[in-house]
Amino acid sequence: MKLTYSPASPFARKVRIAAIELGLIDKIEFVPATVVPGTPNDEYSQINPVKKLPALILDNGDVIVDSYVIVEYLDELAGGGKLIPATGDAKWKVKSDHSLLQGMLDSMLLCRYERMVRPAELRWQGWADDHWNRAWKGMARFNDKPEVLSRPLDIVQISLACVLGYADFRYADCGWRKAYPKLDAFHEKMLARPSVKVSLPPPA
Amino acid sequence: MKLTYSPASPFARKVRIAAIELGLIDKIEFVPATVVPGTPNDEYSQINPVKKLPALILDNGDVIVDSYVIVEYLDELAGGGKLIPATGDAKWKVKSDHSLLQGMLDSMLLCRYERMVRPAELRWQGWADDHWNRAWKGMARFNDKPEVLSRPLDIVQISLACVLGYADFRYADCGWRKAYPKLDAFHEKMLARPSVKVSLPPPA
Repeated sequence: MKLTYSPASPFARKVRIAAIELGLIDKIEFVPATVVPGTPNDEYSQINPVKKLPALILDNGDVIVDSYVIVEYLDELAGGGKLIPATGDAKWKVKSDHSLLQGMLDSMLLCRYERMVRPAELRWQGWADDHWNRAWKGMARFNDKPEVLSRPLDIVQISLACVLGYADFRYADCGWRKAYPKLDAFHEKMLARPSVKVSLPPPA
Repeated sequence: MKLTYSPASPFARKVRIAAIELGLIDKIEFVPATVVPGTPNDEYSQINPVKKLPALILDNGDVIVDSYVIVEYLDELAGGGKLIPATGDAKWKVKSDHSLLQGMLDSMLLCRYERMVRPAELRWQGWADDHWNRAWKGMARFNDKPEVLSRPLDIVQISLACVLGYADFRYADCGWRKAYPKLDAFHEKMLARPSVKVSLPPPA
């Protein structure tokens, strides 16, 4: 299998951490790819028309997107029910919490594009604030969920670590550790895992 | 159950069509909600910090997001394997195709916000073009998948109908019917379903 990948992508990081934790990392070849908003990339659009990282390319040529479906696929390859509960109420809580975290990451990327990628004279403060607030309120939600922060590893914890790592990477001064001390403790605990540590984004 | 809903939201429409097709529509109370990019909505942020429609509020107060997870939940309530295959290669193809369609809708909304909601002097043509191209190339992908367009109803067909309906709603002059005649035939066939017809967006 091949995974299109960028070390700066929190979505690709999520898949990498999951692959390590599931014992599948050696089966995946990482293929560097770069997608820049506002800039065509016709070669990558052939793989994924919506131009997002990561995509998993199977040996038969089938392409699986997005990061969540890729993790589901790897989880099933590893026997199932490892990082995503297979049944019951827990399944829906995990899936729904993951969707929240996915939306938070989407908003953090939109906020970054607004502040750093868009031509400076075309920036809209209200849009950037709106998306930042979505991520910030989402962090508050998880700071108040001690059961999520303390249970055995799952896709929610991996995604939350990716949210916090992306905050450090792109919003180093946002102050999330002071605002959300339970997330700070959670993040420190997660960093003890080699999968989380080795996949930290490069210096910004 | 309650579903936060706007008749203009293609994501909410997807859930509505699924609920009708699964025979669950009478168990869901639709709760109108409005979210505007760049404008806070603190009340709705309490329900969904990432401020997206729809959200399913269960009778015990649990909230399920996003639209895909809601459809999965409803599908399981209806017995499972109705709109999303439960096993096998077909499951991964359907999930991955759905992710593509979700990305296409995300891009169509971002393109609309850029062209219509953002203050006129702050618009960036390259961003709007990039996101429109993602949706457009995605349509080409599905136009070339006759097996997807002709098989029994599933979440991919429902989502594709929502993409095309949203194109009519917000990009009436984009010419998708002429560019993608197989999608046109598919859309006509889908409109024969009451679920698809009754949920068409209002006149723009």
